[in-house]
Amino acid sequence: MSEQKRTTIILFSGDYDKVMAAYIIANGAAAYDHEVTIFHTFWGLNALRKDETIEVKKTFMEKMFGKMMPRGADKMGLSKMNFAGFGPKMIKDVMKKHNAMTVPQLIEMAQEQEIKLVACTMTMDLLGLSQAELLDNIEYAGVAAYLADAQEGNVNLFI
Amino acid sequence: MSEQKRTTIILFSGDYDKVMAAYIIANGAAAYDHEVTIFHTFWGLNALRKDETIEVKKTFMEKMFGKMMPRGADKMGLSKMNFAGFGPKMIKDVMKKHNAMTVPQLIEMAQEQEIKLVACTMTMDLLGLSQAELLDNIEYAGVAAYLADAQEGNVNLFI
Amino acid sequence: MSEQKRTTIILFSGDYDKVMAAYIIANGAAAYDHEVTIFHTFWGLNALRKDETIEVKKTFMEKMFGKMMPRGADKMGLSKMNFAGFGPKMIKDVMKKHNAMTVPQLIEMAQEQEIKLVACTMTMDLLGLSQAELLDNIEYAGVAAYLADAQEGNVNLFI
Repeated sequence: MSEQKRTTIILFSGDYDKVMAAYIIANGAAAYDHEVTIFHTFWGLNALRKDETIEVKKTFMEKMFGKMMPRGADKMGLSKMNFAGFGPKMIKDVMKKHNAMTVPQLIEMAQEQEIKLVACTMTMDLLGLSQAELLDNIEYAGVAAYLADAQEGNVNLFI
Repeated sequence: MSEQKRTTIILFSGDYDKVMAAYIIANGAAAYDHEVTIFHTFWGLNALRKDETIEVKKTFMEKMFGKMMPRGADKMGLSKMNFAGFGPKMIKDVMKKHNAMTVPQLIEMAQEQEIKLVACTMTMDLLGLSQAELLDNIEYAGVAAYLADAQEGNVNLFI
Repeated sequence: MSEQKRTTIILFSGDYDKVMAAYIIANGAAAYDHEVTIFHTFWGLNALRKDETIEVKKTFMEKMFGKMMPRGADKMGLSKMNFAGFGPKMIKDVMKKHNAMTVPQLIEMAQEQEIKLVACTMTMDLLGLSQAELLDNIEYAGVAAYLADAQEGNVNLFI
């Protein structure tokens, strides 16, 4: 009897390349039969944003955050060589040529593989993001839930 | 009989938001009865700096590092949307409105919860930081001590 | 009978300071008798580049990436206080004064300690890096090989 392995990733970063790395590892781990959780906090929450504008009542500050942060991974920059937005275009062109999956496709695959996608409610509050603005079929939790998963984990990463 | 769980965080980053994330996880883990260590290295050491100027004999280079690096977490920038220092102000305003703890308060709480705060002596040397400039009641150690903690750990993160 | 401990690091970052941190931890863990793997992906691959120009047939895009990315750790910038390349010079001057090992020396030491240095083949393809451009005696693998190592690991870090 072998017990199930577990991978738990905190996705803090809101860079296209780091989000891509997180989802590639997560999808790999799920294919490897791990139970996988990605806990999205701070800028990593933006990976879960729907790309249309959602009408939600917000304070002035929340509106500003909402406007300045990318709506979904596809609008994110790179952690390196961003070149005012030209870097992501280069990477995406190259990915297309290699038939690599885009980040939105990797997220879709993660949902199909039943990877648990969690949005950190504390940072949602801070950044003024509401559930209506995020993808469907994700979970909402705080640091206690993260720790409950992570402390049983084999692979724990902060990205 | 259940053995005590352990969380060990390397805090390398000197960004306000990442330091906040590290201390929220650490305080959560301590509340969850983990034995917790935060090992501060490189820019993460600045989270432990006292905010007043301390008179210490330094070389020219050490003085320059000392002046350019923030004295304490409260003076740090953000990893994203820093906007020449306007970003941290926005985040702090929002945190205040949500009654969220500031990073200096989170560090204080960590000390009350007996989280082991360690300063990496090797990088202190490199950056010219002396013990007199750092908070009281912290420990001083190197990579061997980190590994001794981490290899028994359940949750190991590099932030 | 005590089983051998294992440390597995994903080196995603291409900043001199973060690469240095990764190799210091890795060398420390190896000295501590861990089995150690550093899995280089994305910008972290640049730490493994030879510093001369290697003639390889490349597409236009691959040539551009090749030119823009640093050839080896010695040409990398810092994650903080880079100051248009002045920061790395400052750090290296200070390291020299403290007789600290440079990153190329740390990499050499890692190879002597039989740390497994792995280059992620998927991101090599994306960035157009070929085996001829990377250091000798490294391994080539993908996310499945990483997970096989990491899931048995005691210390897993994403840097």
